[in-house]
Amino acid sequence: MSAPYTLILLRHGQSEWNKSNQFTGWVDVRLTEQGKGEAARGGALMAEAGLLPDILHTSVLSRAIQTADIALDAADRLWIPVRRSWRLNERHYGALQGKDKAQTLEEFGEEQFMLWRRSFDVPPPDLADDDQYSQVGDPRYADIDGDVPRTESLKLVIDRMLPYWESDIIPDLRTGKTVLVTAHGNSLRGLVKHLEGISDAEIAELNIPTGIPLAYKLGEDMMPLGPGQYLDPEAAAAGAAAVAAQGKG
Amino acid sequence: MSAPYTLILLRHGQSEWNKSNQFTGWVDVRLTEQGKGEAARGGALMAEAGLLPDILHTSVLSRAIQTADIALDAADRLWIPVRRSWRLNERHYGALQGKDKAQTLEEFGEEQFMLWRRSFDVPPPDLADDDQYSQVGDPRYADIDGDVPRTESLKLVIDRMLPYWESDIIPDLRTGKTVLVTAHGNSLRGLVKHLEGISDAEIAELNIPTGIPLAYKLGEDMMPLGPGQYLDPEAAAAGAAAVAAQGKG
Repeated sequence: MSAPYTLILLRHGQSEWNKSNQFTGWVDVRLTEQGKGEAARGGALMAEAGLLPDILHTSVLSRAIQTADIALDAADRLWIPVRRSWRLNERHYGALQGKDKAQTLEEFGEEQFMLWRRSFDVPPPDLADDDQYSQVGDPRYADIDGDVPRTESLKLVIDRMLPYWESDIIPDLRTGKTVLVTAHGNSLRGLVKHLEGISDAEIAELNIPTGIPLAYKLGEDMMPLGPGQYLDPEAAAAGAAAVAAQGKG
Repeated sequence: MSAPYTLILLRHGQSEWNKSNQFTGWVDVRLTEQGKGEAARGGALMAEAGLLPDILHTSVLSRAIQTADIALDAADRLWIPVRRSWRLNERHYGALQGKDKAQTLEEFGEEQFMLWRRSFDVPPPDLADDDQYSQVGDPRYADIDGDVPRTESLKLVIDRMLPYWESDIIPDLRTGKTVLVTAHGNSLRGLVKHLEGISDAEIAELNIPTGIPLAYKLGEDMMPLGPGQYLDPEAAAAGAAAVAAQGKG
Protein backbone atom coordinates (compact mmCIF):
# COMPACT_ATOMS: atom_id res chain seq x y z
CA MET A 1 0.00 0.00 0.00
CA SER A 2 1.06 3.59 -0.39
CA ALA A 3 0.26 6.86 1.38
CA PRO A 4 -1.90 8.38 2.63
CA TYR A 5 -2.28 6.10 5.63
CA THR A 6 -5.10 6.63 8.11
CA LEU A 7 -4.68 6.81 11.88
CA ILE A 8 -7.47 7.49 14.38
CA LEU A 9 -6.77 8.37 18.02
CA LEU A 10 -9.45 8.04 20.69
CA ARG A 11 -9.05 9.07 24.32
CA HIS A 12 -11.19 7.15 26.81
CA GLY A 13 -14.19 8.87 28.36
CA GLN A 14 -14.92 9.64 31.99
CA SER A 15 -13.66 7.05 34.47
CA GLU A 16 -14.77 6.50 38.06
CA TRP A 17 -11.75 8.43 39.31
CA ASN A 18 -12.12 11.25 36.81
CA LYS A 19 -15.52 11.65 38.43
CA SER A 20 -14.23 11.42 42.01
CA ASN A 21 -11.26 13.70 41.15
CA GLN A 22 -8.49 11.24 42.06
CA PHE A 23 -5.14 10.72 40.30
CA THR A 24 -5.46 7.49 38.37
CA GLY A 25 -2.36 6.63 36.32
CA TRP A 26 -1.97 2.87 36.14
CA VAL A 27 -4.76 2.11 38.64
CA ASP A 28 -7.31 0.08 36.71
CA VAL A 29 -10.58 1.92 37.30
CA ARG A 30 -13.58 1.47 35.01
CA LEU A 31 -15.62 3.92 32.92
CA THR A 32 -18.65 5.66 34.42
CA GLU A 33 -21.98 5.57 32.60
CA GLN A 34 -21.07 8.99 31.18
CA GLY A 35 -17.76 7.55 29.96
CA LYS A 36 -19.57 4.67 28.26
CA GLY A 37 -21.84 7.16 26.54
CA GLU A 38 -18.81 9.11 25.29
CA ALA A 39 -17.34 5.90 23.88
CA ALA A 40 -20.57 5.01 22.05
CA ARG A 41 -20.71 8.49 20.57
CA GLY A 42 -17.08 8.18 19.45
CA GLY A 43 -18.00 5.00 17.59
CA ALA A 44 -21.06 6.63 16.04
CA LEU A 45 -18.90 9.54 14.84
CA MET A 46 -16.52 7.13 13.09
CA ALA A 47 -19.43 5.33 11.44
CA GLU A 48 -21.05 8.62 10.33
CA ALA A 49 -17.74 9.80 8.86
CA GLY A 50 -17.29 6.46 7.07
CA LEU A 51 -13.95 6.21 8.87
CA LEU A 52 -14.01 2.58 9.95
CA PRO A 53 -11.05 1.04 11.78
CA ASP A 54 -9.53 -2.15 10.36
CA ILE A 55 -7.34 -2.86 13.37
CA LEU A 56 -7.28 -1.72 16.99
CA HIS A 57 -4.45 -0.95 19.40
CA THR A 58 -5.25 -0.36 23.08
CA SER A 59 -3.40 -0.02 26.36
CA VAL A 60 -3.86 -2.79 28.93
CA LEU A 61 -6.01 -0.57 31.15
CA SER A 62 -9.69 -1.49 31.33
CA ARG A 63 -11.01 2.02 30.71
CA ALA A 64 -9.30 2.19 27.31
CA ILE A 65 -10.37 -1.36 26.46
CA GLN A 66 -13.98 -0.64 27.45
CA THR A 67 -13.89 2.53 25.34
CA ALA A 68 -12.67 0.61 22.31
CA ASP A 69 -15.17 -2.22 22.78
CA ILE A 70 -18.11 0.17 23.09
CA ALA A 71 -16.99 2.41 20.22
CA LEU A 72 -16.41 -0.55 17.91
CA ASP A 73 -19.78 -2.01 18.85
CA ALA A 74 -21.42 1.31 17.90
CA ALA A 75 -19.50 1.33 14.60
CA ASP A 76 -20.30 -2.38 13.95
CA ARG A 77 -16.57 -3.27 13.93
CA LEU A 78 -16.28 -5.52 16.99
CA TRP A 79 -14.66 -8.18 14.82
CA ILE A 80 -11.46 -6.34 13.86
CA PRO A 81 -8.08 -7.64 15.11
CA VAL A 82 -6.91 -6.26 18.46
CA ARG A 83 -3.46 -5.61 19.88
CA ARG A 84 -2.81 -4.43 23.42
CA SER A 85 0.32 -3.02 25.03
CA TRP A 86 1.28 -1.51 28.38
CA ARG A 87 3.31 0.95 26.28
CA LEU A 88 0.04 2.75 25.47
CA ASN A 89 -0.87 3.04 29.16
CA GLU A 90 -1.58 6.33 30.89
CA ARG A 91 1.35 8.03 32.59
CA HIS A 92 2.19 6.33 35.90
CA TYR A 93 1.42 8.97 38.49
CA GLY A 94 3.78 7.62 41.17
CA ALA A 95 2.92 8.42 44.77
CA LEU A 96 -0.01 10.53 43.60
CA GLN A 97 -1.95 7.46 42.37
CA GLY A 98 -5.19 7.18 44.31
CA LYS A 99 -4.83 10.61 45.89
CA ASP A 100 -7.57 13.22 45.80
CA LYS A 101 -6.53 16.04 43.47
CA ALA A 102 -7.92 18.88 45.57
CA GLN A 103 -6.29 17.51 48.73
CA THR A 104 -2.97 17.11 46.91
CA LEU A 105 -3.15 20.70 45.73
CA GLU A 106 -3.81 21.87 49.27
CA GLU A 107 -1.10 19.69 50.78
CA PHE A 108 1.72 20.52 48.36
CA GLY A 109 0.76 23.96 47.06
CA GLU A 110 0.00 25.05 43.52
CA GLU A 111 3.58 25.33 42.30
CA GLN A 112 4.57 21.76 43.18
CA PHE A 113 1.17 20.46 42.07
CA MET A 114 1.41 22.06 38.63
CA LEU A 115 5.04 20.94 38.26
CA TRP A 116 4.01 17.30 38.74
CA ARG A 117 1.02 17.66 36.45
CA ARG A 118 2.42 19.78 33.68
CA SER A 119 6.21 19.65 33.59
CA PHE A 120 7.74 17.60 30.79
CA ASP A 121 10.34 15.68 32.72
CA VAL A 122 9.68 15.95 36.47
CA PRO A 123 7.97 12.81 37.74
CA PRO A 124 6.09 12.69 41.05
CA PRO A 125 7.78 10.74 43.87
CA ASP A 126 7.91 6.95 43.49
CA LEU A 127 4.88 4.93 44.52
CA ALA A 128 5.85 2.47 47.28
CA ASP A 129 5.81 -1.19 46.23
CA ASP A 130 3.54 -2.07 49.14
CA ASP A 131 1.06 0.68 48.31
CA GLN A 132 -2.44 -0.60 47.54
CA TYR A 133 -2.21 1.17 44.17
CA SER A 134 1.18 -0.28 43.15
CA GLN A 135 1.36 -2.46 40.00
CA VAL A 136 4.31 -4.50 41.28
CA GLY A 137 3.34 -8.16 40.93
CA ASP A 138 0.33 -7.50 38.69
CA PRO A 139 0.24 -10.41 36.19
CA ARG A 140 -0.76 -8.08 33.35
CA TYR A 141 2.76 -6.60 33.47
CA ALA A 142 4.62 -9.93 33.56
CA ASP A 143 5.98 -9.22 30.07
CA ILE A 144 7.60 -5.87 30.88
CA ASP A 145 11.34 -6.05 30.41
CA GLY A 146 12.74 -4.98 33.74
CA ASP A 147 10.49 -3.62 36.45
CA VAL A 148 7.11 -1.94 36.23
CA PRO A 149 7.32 1.85 36.64
CA ARG A 150 7.02 3.40 40.11
CA THR A 151 6.43 6.83 38.57
CA GLU A 152 6.69 8.57 35.20
CA SER A 153 7.07 12.02 33.68
CA LEU A 154 5.55 12.75 30.27
CA LYS A 155 9.08 12.34 28.87
CA LEU A 156 9.26 8.80 30.28
CA VAL A 157 5.84 8.02 28.78
CA ILE A 158 7.08 9.07 25.36
CA ASP A 159 10.29 7.05 25.83
CA ARG A 160 8.30 3.83 26.31
CA MET A 161 5.44 4.64 23.91
CA LEU A 162 7.34 5.62 20.74
CA PRO A 163 9.13 2.25 20.39
CA TYR A 164 5.66 0.63 20.16
CA TRP A 165 4.55 3.20 17.58
CA GLU A 166 7.56 2.21 15.50
CA SER A 167 7.50 -1.55 16.05
CA ASP A 168 3.77 -2.32 16.06
CA ILE A 169 1.54 0.52 14.89
CA ILE A 170 3.51 1.74 11.86
CA PRO A 171 3.72 -1.78 10.34
CA ASP A 172 -0.08 -2.06 10.58
CA LEU A 173 -0.48 1.37 8.96
CA ARG A 174 1.85 0.33 6.13
CA THR A 175 -0.49 -2.53 5.19
CA GLY A 176 -3.05 0.15 4.31
CA LYS A 177 -5.28 -0.61 7.26
CA THR A 178 -7.08 2.17 9.11
CA VAL A 179 -5.59 1.95 12.60
CA LEU A 180 -7.50 2.98 15.73
CA VAL A 181 -5.46 3.69 18.87
CA THR A 182 -7.59 3.87 22.01
CA ALA A 183 -5.59 5.15 24.94
CA HIS A 184 -5.09 7.92 27.48
CA GLY A 185 -4.53 11.64 27.91
CA ASN A 186 -0.77 11.36 28.27
CA SER A 187 0.08 8.48 25.96
CA LEU A 188 -1.93 10.17 23.19
CA ARG A 189 -0.43 13.54 24.09
CA GLY A 190 2.99 11.96 23.58
CA LEU A 191 1.99 10.56 20.20
CA VAL A 192 0.51 13.88 19.04
CA LYS A 193 3.66 15.66 20.23
CA HIS A 194 5.69 13.37 17.97
CA LEU A 195 3.31 13.70 14.99
CA GLU A 196 2.85 17.46 15.18
CA GLY A 197 6.39 18.32 16.29
CA ILE A 198 5.24 20.14 19.43
CA SER A 199 8.08 21.30 21.69
CA ASP A 200 8.72 20.01 25.22
CA ALA A 201 7.76 23.45 26.55
CA GLU A 202 4.46 23.67 24.67
CA ILE A 203 3.11 20.15 25.02
CA ALA A 204 1.60 20.83 28.45
CA GLU A 205 -0.86 23.18 26.78
CA LEU A 206 -2.21 20.44 24.49
CA ASN A 207 -5.48 19.04 25.82
CA ILE A 208 -6.97 16.13 23.93
CA PRO A 209 -10.72 15.89 24.53
CA THR A 210 -12.25 12.57 25.56
CA GLY A 211 -14.38 10.40 23.31
CA ILE A 212 -13.91 12.34 20.07
CA PRO A 213 -11.97 10.52 17.35
CA LEU A 214 -8.95 12.46 16.03
CA ALA A 215 -8.01 11.41 12.50
CA TYR A 216 -4.67 11.85 10.73
CA LYS A 217 -3.65 11.19 7.16
CA LEU A 218 0.01 10.17 7.13
CA GLY A 219 2.60 10.24 4.37
CA GLU A 220 5.29 7.69 3.51
CA ASP A 221 7.43 9.03 6.35
CA MET A 222 4.51 8.27 8.74
CA MET A 223 4.18 11.94 9.60
CA PRO A 224 0.92 13.87 9.07
CA LEU A 225 0.08 15.40 5.70
CA GLY A 226 -1.98 18.02 7.54
CA PRO A 227 -3.32 18.80 10.98
CA GLY A 228 -5.34 16.14 12.79
CA GLN A 229 -9.11 16.38 12.27
CA TYR A 230 -11.54 15.86 15.11
CA LEU A 231 -14.67 14.14 13.83
CA ASP A 232 -16.74 16.62 15.84
CA PRO A 233 -14.64 19.83 15.89
CA GLU A 234 -17.12 21.88 17.94
CA ALA A 235 -17.40 19.27 20.68
CA ALA A 236 -13.63 18.80 20.57
CA ALA A 237 -12.99 22.49 21.24
CA ALA A 238 -15.44 22.48 24.14
CA GLY A 239 -13.97 19.24 25.47
CA ALA A 240 -10.39 20.50 25.33
CA ALA A 241 -11.41 23.62 27.22
CA ALA A 242 -13.11 21.47 29.86
CA VAL A 243 -9.99 19.29 30.25
CA ALA A 244 -7.82 22.42 30.54
CA ALA A 245 -10.10 23.87 33.22
CA GLN A 246 -10.01 20.57 35.14
CA GLY A 247 -6.21 20.63 34.92
CA LYS A 248 -6.20 23.87 36.85
CA GLY A 249 -8.46 22.39 39.53
CA MET B 1 6.09 -25.39 29.74
CA SER B 2 4.88 -28.91 30.23
CA ALA B 3 1.48 -30.58 30.68
CA PRO B 4 -1.12 -30.28 31.98
CA TYR B 5 -2.28 -27.40 29.80
CA THR B 6 -5.53 -25.58 30.55
CA LEU B 7 -8.26 -24.89 28.02
CA ILE B 8 -11.60 -23.22 28.76
CA LEU B 9 -14.50 -23.26 26.30
CA LEU B 10 -17.38 -20.79 26.59
CA ARG B 11 -20.47 -20.79 24.38
CA HIS B 12 -22.15 -17.40 23.91
CA GLY B 13 -25.42 -16.70 25.70
CA GLN B 14 -28.83 -15.90 24.27
CA SER B 15 -28.79 -13.81 21.10
CA GLU B 16 -31.61 -11.78 19.59
CA TRP B 17 -32.36 -14.56 17.13
CA ASN B 18 -32.16 -17.32 19.73
CA LYS B 19 -34.92 -15.36 21.38
CA SER B 20 -36.96 -14.85 18.21
CA ASN B 21 -36.34 -18.50 17.17
CA GLN B 22 -34.59 -17.78 13.84
CA PHE B 23 -31.69 -19.66 12.28
CA THR B 24 -28.64 -17.46 12.76
CA GLY B 25 -25.43 -19.03 11.46
CA TRP B 26 -23.11 -16.30 10.20
CA VAL B 27 -25.68 -13.48 10.53
CA ASP B 28 -24.17 -11.04 13.02
CA VAL B 29 -26.90 -10.60 15.62
CA ARG B 30 -26.15 -9.28 19.11
CA LEU B 31 -26.73 -10.72 22.59
CA THR B 32 -29.99 -10.05 24.42
CA GLU B 33 -29.92 -8.71 27.98
CA GLN B 34 -30.32 -12.31 29.14
CA GLY B 35 -27.33 -13.30 27.02
CA LYS B 36 -25.24 -10.52 28.56
CA GLY B 37 -26.20 -11.77 32.00
CA GLU B 38 -25.11 -15.30 31.06
CA ALA B 39 -21.75 -13.93 29.90
CA ALA B 40 -21.19 -12.03 33.14
CA ARG B 41 -22.03 -15.14 35.15
CA GLY B 42 -19.57 -17.16 33.04
CA GLY B 43 -16.84 -14.66 33.94
CA ALA B 44 -17.79 -14.76 37.62
CA LEU B 45 -17.60 -18.57 37.57
CA MET B 46 -14.07 -18.43 36.17
CA ALA B 47 -13.03 -15.91 38.82
CA GLU B 48 -14.60 -17.96 41.63
CA ALA B 49 -12.84 -21.11 40.41
CA GLY B 50 -9.54 -19.20 40.19
CA LEU B 51 -9.40 -20.28 36.56
CA LEU B 52 -8.28 -17.06 34.90
CA PRO B 53 -7.63 -16.92 31.16
CA ASP B 54 -4.25 -15.60 29.98
CA ILE B 55 -5.25 -15.35 26.32
CA LEU B 56 -8.52 -15.27 24.41
CA HIS B 57 -9.60 -16.70 21.07
CA THR B 58 -12.98 -15.70 19.61
CA SER B 59 -14.86 -16.03 16.36
CA VAL B 60 -15.47 -12.84 14.35
CA LEU B 61 -19.17 -12.82 15.23
CA SER B 62 -20.28 -10.06 17.60
CA ARG B 63 -22.24 -12.32 19.96
CA ALA B 64 -19.11 -14.35 20.79
CA ILE B 65 -16.99 -11.18 21.09
CA GLN B 66 -19.57 -9.54 23.37
CA THR B 67 -19.66 -12.70 25.49
CA ALA B 68 -15.89 -12.70 25.87
CA ASP B 69 -15.71 -8.98 26.64
CA ILE B 70 -18.40 -9.20 29.31
CA ALA B 71 -17.03 -12.40 30.86
CA LEU B 72 -13.48 -11.02 30.98
CA ASP B 73 -14.74 -7.78 32.51
CA ALA B 74 -16.47 -9.81 35.24
CA ALA B 75 -13.26 -11.79 35.82
CA ASP B 76 -11.11 -8.61 35.73
CA ARG B 77 -9.12 -9.92 32.74
CA LEU B 78 -10.08 -7.41 30.02
CA TRP B 79 -6.38 -6.79 29.37
CA ILE B 80 -5.38 -10.25 28.10
CA PRO B 81 -4.27 -10.68 24.48
CA VAL B 82 -7.03 -11.43 21.97
CA ARG B 83 -7.05 -13.42 18.72
CA ARG B 84 -10.07 -13.68 16.42
CA SER B 85 -10.78 -16.02 13.54
CA TRP B 86 -13.68 -16.77 11.24
CA ARG B 87 -12.64 -20.43 11.70
CA LEU B 88 -14.31 -20.33 15.12
CA ASN B 89 -17.58 -19.02 13.65
CA GLU B 90 -20.90 -20.75 14.07
CA ARG B 91 -21.92 -23.20 11.35
CA HIS B 92 -23.12 -21.35 8.23
CA TYR B 93 -26.79 -22.31 7.98
CA GLY B 94 -27.10 -21.74 4.23
CA ALA B 95 -30.55 -20.89 2.91
CA LEU B 96 -31.99 -21.33 6.41
CA GLN B 97 -30.20 -18.20 7.72
CA GLY B 98 -32.79 -15.69 8.87
CA LYS B 99 -35.66 -18.16 8.63
CA ASP B 100 -38.08 -18.79 11.47
CA LYS B 101 -37.43 -22.24 12.92
CA ALA B 102 -41.08 -23.15 13.48
CA GLN B 103 -42.04 -22.04 9.96
CA THR B 104 -39.15 -24.01 8.48
CA LEU B 105 -40.28 -27.12 10.36
CA GLU B 106 -43.79 -26.68 9.04
CA GLU B 107 -42.66 -25.97 5.48
CA PHE B 108 -40.20 -28.85 5.09
CA GLY B 109 -41.47 -31.42 7.58
CA GLU B 110 -39.72 -32.88 10.59
CA GLU B 111 -37.54 -35.40 8.77
CA GLN B 112 -35.89 -32.83 6.49
CA PHE B 113 -35.71 -30.29 9.30
CA MET B 114 -33.91 -32.67 11.65
CA LEU B 115 -31.59 -33.83 8.86
CA TRP B 116 -30.40 -30.26 8.31
CA ARG B 117 -30.10 -29.59 12.00
CA ARG B 118 -28.61 -32.82 13.25
CA SER B 119 -26.96 -34.76 10.45
CA PHE B 120 -23.17 -34.76 10.42
CA ASP B 121 -22.53 -34.07 6.78
CA VAL B 122 -25.73 -32.87 5.07
CA PRO B 123 -25.67 -29.07 4.68
CA PRO B 124 -28.82 -27.04 4.04
CA PRO B 125 -29.18 -25.61 0.51
CA ASP B 126 -26.82 -22.76 -0.42
CA LEU B 127 -27.70 -19.24 0.61
CA ALA B 128 -28.07 -17.03 -2.48
CA ASP B 129 -25.33 -14.40 -2.86
CA ASP B 130 -27.94 -11.65 -3.18
CA ASP B 131 -29.79 -12.73 -0.05
CA GLN B 132 -29.92 -10.06 2.65
CA TYR B 133 -28.28 -12.55 5.02
CA SER B 134 -25.39 -13.51 2.71
CA GLN B 135 -21.81 -12.77 3.86
CA VAL B 136 -20.47 -12.36 0.31
CA GLY B 137 -18.64 -9.04 0.18
CA ASP B 138 -18.52 -8.58 3.97
CA PRO B 139 -15.14 -6.95 4.73
CA ARG B 140 -14.68 -9.05 7.85
CA TYR B 141 -14.16 -12.08 5.59
CA ALA B 142 -11.69 -10.42 3.21
CA ASP B 143 -8.94 -12.72 4.50
CA ILE B 144 -10.69 -16.01 3.76
CA ASP B 145 -8.74 -18.01 1.22
CA GLY B 146 -11.26 -18.66 -1.52
CA ASP B 147 -14.88 -17.77 -1.10
CA VAL B 148 -16.97 -17.35 2.02
CA PRO B 149 -19.23 -20.35 2.69
CA ARG B 150 -22.77 -20.43 1.27
CA THR B 151 -23.70 -23.29 3.61
CA GLU B 152 -22.02 -25.76 5.96
CA SER B 153 -22.59 -29.13 7.58
CA LEU B 154 -21.04 -29.87 10.97
CA LYS B 155 -18.39 -31.83 9.09
CA LEU B 156 -17.46 -28.71 7.09
CA VAL B 157 -17.30 -26.69 10.31
CA ILE B 158 -14.81 -29.17 11.76
CA ASP B 159 -12.79 -29.15 8.52
CA ARG B 160 -12.23 -25.39 8.79
CA MET B 161 -12.01 -25.17 12.60
CA LEU B 162 -9.43 -27.87 13.37
CA PRO B 163 -6.63 -26.26 11.30
CA TYR B 164 -6.98 -23.17 13.55
CA TRP B 165 -6.89 -25.35 16.67
CA GLU B 166 -3.60 -26.78 15.41
CA SER B 167 -2.02 -23.60 14.05
CA ASP B 168 -3.10 -20.99 16.59
CA ILE B 169 -4.65 -22.38 19.77
CA ILE B 170 -2.27 -25.26 20.48
CA PRO B 171 0.83 -23.02 20.25
CA ASP B 172 -0.71 -20.68 22.85
CA LEU B 173 -1.50 -23.66 25.10
CA ARG B 174 2.09 -24.90 24.78
CA THR B 175 3.40 -21.64 26.27
CA GLY B 176 1.60 -22.64 29.47
CA LYS B 177 -1.09 -19.99 29.13
CA THR B 178 -4.67 -20.71 30.15
CA VAL B 179 -6.56 -20.33 26.87
CA LEU B 180 -10.19 -19.23 26.68
CA VAL B 181 -12.10 -19.99 23.47
CA THR B 182 -15.38 -18.10 23.21
CA ALA B 183 -17.45 -19.36 20.32
CA HIS B 184 -20.63 -21.09 19.19
CA GLY B 185 -22.72 -24.24 19.58
CA ASN B 186 -21.35 -25.94 16.50
CA SER B 187 -17.73 -24.76 16.44
CA LEU B 188 -17.38 -25.82 20.08
CA ARG B 189 -19.25 -29.05 19.39
CA GLY B 190 -16.66 -29.77 16.71
CA LEU B 191 -13.79 -29.08 19.09
CA VAL B 192 -15.30 -31.25 21.85
CA LYS B 193 -15.88 -34.02 19.27
CA HIS B 194 -12.17 -33.92 18.50
CA LEU B 195 -11.08 -33.75 22.16
CA GLU B 196 -13.40 -36.44 23.46
CA GLY B 197 -13.30 -38.72 20.42
CA ILE B 198 -17.06 -38.63 19.87
CA SER B 199 -18.24 -40.44 16.74
CA ASP B 200 -19.91 -38.78 13.75
CA ALA B 201 -23.12 -40.59 14.64
CA GLU B 202 -23.16 -39.55 18.30
CA ILE B 203 -22.07 -35.93 18.08
CA ALA B 204 -25.60 -34.66 17.33
CA GLU B 205 -26.59 -35.69 20.84
CA LEU B 206 -23.96 -33.45 22.44
CA ASN B 207 -25.51 -30.20 23.67
CA ILE B 208 -23.12 -27.62 25.09
CA PRO B 209 -24.96 -25.24 27.45
CA THR B 210 -24.54 -21.49 27.00
CA GLY B 211 -22.57 -19.28 29.34
CA ILE B 212 -21.01 -21.99 31.49
CA PRO B 213 -17.22 -22.36 31.18
CA LEU B 214 -16.09 -25.88 30.29
CA ALA B 215 -12.52 -26.58 31.42
CA TYR B 216 -10.11 -29.22 30.14
CA LYS B 217 -6.68 -30.28 31.35
CA LEU B 218 -4.67 -31.43 28.34
CA GLY B 219 -1.61 -33.67 28.11
CA GLU B 220 1.49 -33.33 25.91
CA ASP B 221 -0.51 -34.72 22.99
CA MET B 222 -3.04 -31.88 23.50
CA MET B 223 -5.78 -34.37 24.26
CA PRO B 224 -7.72 -34.30 27.56
CA LEU B 225 -6.37 -36.02 30.67
CA GLY B 226 -9.97 -36.49 31.83
CA PRO B 227 -13.50 -35.39 30.98
CA GLY B 228 -14.21 -31.69 30.63
CA GLN B 229 -15.43 -30.00 33.81
CA TYR B 230 -18.25 -27.46 33.74
CA LEU B 231 -17.62 -24.78 36.34
CA ASP B 232 -21.28 -25.06 37.39
CA PRO B 233 -22.20 -28.72 36.73
CA GLU B 234 -25.81 -28.42 37.90
CA ALA B 235 -26.55 -25.44 35.71
CA ALA B 236 -24.73 -27.13 32.84
CA ALA B 237 -26.95 -30.20 33.02
CA ALA B 238 -30.07 -28.04 33.08
CA GLY B 239 -28.72 -25.89 30.26
CA ALA B 240 -27.88 -28.86 28.04
CA ALA B 241 -31.38 -30.24 28.56
CA ALA B 242 -32.86 -26.88 27.60
CA VAL B 243 -30.74 -26.72 24.42
CA ALA B 244 -31.76 -30.28 23.53
CA ALA B 245 -35.44 -29.46 24.02
CA GLN B 246 -35.08 -26.35 21.85
CA GLY B 247 -33.42 -28.51 19.18
CA LYS B 248 -36.60 -30.55 18.95
CA GLY B 249 -38.70 -27.41 18.61
